[in-house]
Amino acid sequence: MKEVKPLHRVEIKTTEKKYQGVLLERPALADKKYIVLKLDNGYNIGLEKKKIKSIRDLGSVKAGKHTKPGRENKGDKPHVSVIATGGTIASRVDYLTGGVHSAFSAQELISAVPELKSIADIRGKQLYNKFSENIQPGDWVSIAKSVARELDDKALGVVVTHGTDTLGYTAAALAFMLKTPVPVVLTGAQRSSDRGSSDAALNLIHSVKTAAESKYPGVCVVMHANLSDDISLIHNPARVRKMHSSRRDAFQSVNCAPLGRVSEKEIILHQEYTPRVNKPELNTKINEAVSLIKYHPGLKPQVIDYLVDSGYEGIVLEGTGLGHTSERLFDSIKAGTDSGILFCMSSQTLNGRVNMNVYSTGRVLIDCGVIPCADMLPETALVKLMWVLGQTKNRKKAAEMMLTDYVGEISDKSHIKDDLSVFES
Amino acid sequence: MKEVKPLHRVEIKTTEKKYQGVLLERPALADKKYIVLKLDNGYNIGLEKKKIKSIRDLGSVKAGKHTKPGRENKGDKPHVSVIATGGTIASRVDYLTGGVHSAFSAQELISAVPELKSIADIRGKQLYNKFSENIQPGDWVSIAKSVARELDDKALGVVVTHGTDTLGYTAAALAFMLKTPVPVVLTGAQRSSDRGSSDAALNLIHSVKTAAESKYPGVCVVMHANLSDDISLIHNPARVRKMHSSRRDAFQSVNCAPLGRVSEKEIILHQEYTPRVNKPELNTKINEAVSLIKYHPGLKPQVIDYLVDSGYEGIVLEGTGLGHTSERLFDSIKAGTDSGILFCMSSQTLNGRVNMNVYSTGRVLIDCGVIPCADMLPETALVKLMWVLGQTKNRKKAAEMMLTDYVGEISDKSHIKDDLSVFES
Repeated sequence: MKEVKPLHRVEIKTTEKKYQGVLLERPALADKKYIVLKLDNGYNIGLEKKKIKSIRDLGSVKAGKHTKPGRENKGDKPHVSVIATGGTIASRVDYLTGGVHSAFSAQELISAVPELKSIADIRGKQLYNKFSENIQPGDWVSIAKSVARELDDKALGVVVTHGTDTLGYTAAALAFMLKTPVPVVLTGAQRSSDRGSSDAALNLIHSVKTAAESKYPGVCVVMHANLSDDISLIHNPARVRKMHSSRRDAFQSVNCAPLGRVSEKEIILHQEYTPRVNKPELNTKINEAVSLIKYHPGLKPQVIDYLVDSGYEGIVLEGTGLGHTSERLFDSIKAGTDSGILFCMSSQTLNGRVNMNVYSTGRVLIDCGVIPCADMLPETALVKLMWVLGQTKNRKKAAEMMLTDYVGEISDKSHIKDDLSVFES
Repeated sequence: MKEVKPLHRVEIKTTEKKYQGVLLERPALADKKYIVLKLDNGYNIGLEKKKIKSIRDLGSVKAGKHTKPGRENKGDKPHVSVIATGGTIASRVDYLTGGVHSAFSAQELISAVPELKSIADIRGKQLYNKFSENIQPGDWVSIAKSVARELDDKALGVVVTHGTDTLGYTAAALAFMLKTPVPVVLTGAQRSSDRGSSDAALNLIHSVKTAAESKYPGVCVVMHANLSDDISLIHNPARVRKMHSSRRDAFQSVNCAPLGRVSEKEIILHQEYTPRVNKPELNTKINEAVSLIKYHPGLKPQVIDYLVDSGYEGIVLEGTGLGHTSERLFDSIKAGTDSGILFCMSSQTLNGRVNMNVYSTGRVLIDCGVIPCADMLPETALVKLMWVLGQTKNRKKAAEMMLTDYVGEISDKSHIKDDLSVFES
C-alpha cells in the first residue's frame, strides 16, 4: 500500500467501495493490517490494507480550519485564563530530601514560561495547591465553577493545571458538568519543571495554544504525545487514562483515537465540531454515594453487602472480560438492585466493550439489574454515575442517562460496528 | 539505522559501548526511538537509535536451541497432558439464544484438533467445566495439584485450558504454587470453536507444541499474538493481562517483552532458562483473607475500616500514579497496619512502577507501613499476597517475600535502571 501520512485527507478505493476522510494515527492496540479513516460524518472505520486498491492523497488537514476565525488577521491576543490547582506542574525537587514539593503559584508558573505571552493574554488564578490524589468530587465542583467564572469574565479559553494522578477523573467530571462553546483544557506534568526532562513548559504552551486558538468547543486534555518535545495530543476528557506511572507520554486515549494534536506550528483536529451551547452552562450536581469495585477471584459478596447496607446509591463494577463477575456475587447484587442501588458494569480489560449477552454470566447480571456500560472506561463510568445520580433520583431515568452519550464517552451502535471492523474478523 | 529483524542475535556498537544480545520486539508502549536488546545476562536494555553506529546481524535465534534435547532425532512423541477447566475454548454458540455454552470435554476438544496428534501423545483430563469468572482461589489449588499429578505421572509438559477472563490470575497463582522443570502452559480462547474467527484450535496447537517441545521450565501463558492465525506469544504468567474484552490478541505482557513466540515451524525463547528444580515441587498454601481496593476520588476511608474490621489480613491498594491514595485514607491504613494487616501498593496505570519516595504522599504511606510493589501488576500483587500470607504469619517476613522476585513478577534494581533507560531521558 502506498504510504500516506496520518492527518492527510484521502480518497480510498477498496475492492468494495470508495471512501473519503481523514487518515488517523493508529490507536496503540490497532492491528497493523488495518488503517483507520475518520469519515465526514464523524465515524471511524477500519479498512483492511490488502483490500485497498488505491489511495489518493488530498493533502494535509489544514490547521487554519480548526482555529478560531479572525485570529490570523488580527494582532490582538485572546484572553486565556490559567487556573492552577497544584500537582507536579507547579512543583520542584527539594534537593535535600529528593522529594517533590509544591512551589509555584499560577502567576509564577506563567512567568516561568515566557513563550505564553506571544500566544495569549494570560490571566492566572490560584484555586488551590493540591496533589491530585487528594482531589475529591467536591473539588470537581469548585474547579467547574471556577472555569465558568473565567468564561463569564470573557476568557476565550481556559487552561486548568492539575496533578496527573487523577487528572483523567477530573477531566471526565468537568466534561459532564460544563457545556462550553470554547476550549477548556486540562493539563499537568509528569516531571517537575526543574528537571531536564520536564514536560511542564511544553504541556502548558500547547494547552494555552489550544485554549487560545482551537475551535474545539468543550473540555479536553492536552499532554505530551511522545518522548520528543514537539507534539502534544488532544484527548477526549472521558476517554483518556494515565497509562504509565512515570513516562511523559503516559496519557492515552482508550477505545478511540485522540481528538487531535498540537505542535508549535499548528493545531489539527480530526473533525470539525459544532458547539453544544452558545454560552457556558454549568450543572455541577453530583451524588457522592457512589463507589467502584474491581472484581477479582476471592472477592467476597460481603463487600457488596457492606456498600449496600452503608447507603451507597450507585456501584460501578469493574468486571472481567465482556462484563462478568463470579456467580457468588449474584445474590448480593440482586439484593442491592432490589433496594434501589444502580449497578453499572465496565471491564478491567479497559480496551474493548462489555457485552453481557454472550455468556450466561452476563445475562444473569442483566437480569439482576446491572447496566452494561458499553465501551466506557471504568473511571468514566464512576464519575458519570456520580453526576447522573446528582441529576435524577429515578432509577430508570438514571439507567437511561448512563447509556446516553453526552461527551463522546460511549460509542453508539453504528459506531460499534465500525469499531469492530477494525478489530474483528 | 539498518533494519534488523527482531529475534535476531546482533552486535551493536553505540557511540559509547559495544553490546551483544537478542533484538526484542518492541513492547506495545515503547518509544520508537529506542530498540530493546536482551543481553546474555538476561537483562533488557534500551538503546537510543541515534546513538547506534553499527549493527551486525548474527542471524536468527535458532529454535533448536530452545527445544528439548533428543526430540529431533527420535520418532517417539512426548507425553503431554491437557487439563480442561472450562471456558470459551470448550464452548460453542447456541444458535437459538445466541449465547455461548460449555460443550466440549477435554477428550472432545483434543479430538476436534487432529493436528495435536502429530505433536504429542495427548492425555486429556477433565478437571471441571467452569467459566473463569467463577474460578476462585481454591480452584487454583486444585488446578495446581492436578498439574502436579500429571507431571508425577510422567507428562513431559502440561496444558491447562481455562476461560480467558481470569486466566491471568490463575497463571500467576500456578507460577507461585508450582516449581516445575518442564513447561506448564495455560491457554484459552476468545472466540468459541464454531466461529470462523475462533482462536481455539491455534491456541491449543501452539500450547501443546510449547508443552511438548520447548525447554521453558515453568508456568507460562500461550495466546494469539495478533489477528493473523500463525503466531502465538509465550507470556510470563505473572506479567500477562487480558487487555481487551474481545480481541484474539487480548493477552499482553505488561512492563516486559513476551518470553518468546510459537509458530507452526518453531518455538523461539528470548533467553535460555535453567530449571529451578529437577522434579515438580508443589506449595499450594494460600490465605484467602486478602482483597484489592482500587483507589478513586470519593473512595471513603470506611471501606478500608470495613475490611480491617472484617478480619482481612492483606489488602492490595491499586493506587494512582507512582503509588498514591488520598490523604483521607491515611488514618485508616495506619490503623490497619497497626493491627497487623499487610497493605501493598500497586498502580492503576498498570505500566511503569510505583515509586513512593518522590512525593510526600508516598513517603507518608510508607511510614504507614504500606509495601511498594515495584512494577508488579495489581492482579499479580493480589495473588502473590494470598500465597505469601499462606507461607508465613510473620508480617516482616511477608513484606520481604512480597519484594522478592520468585517468577519474574518484579524487576530488581539493576533491571530498573535498564528499564528506565528505555523510557526516560
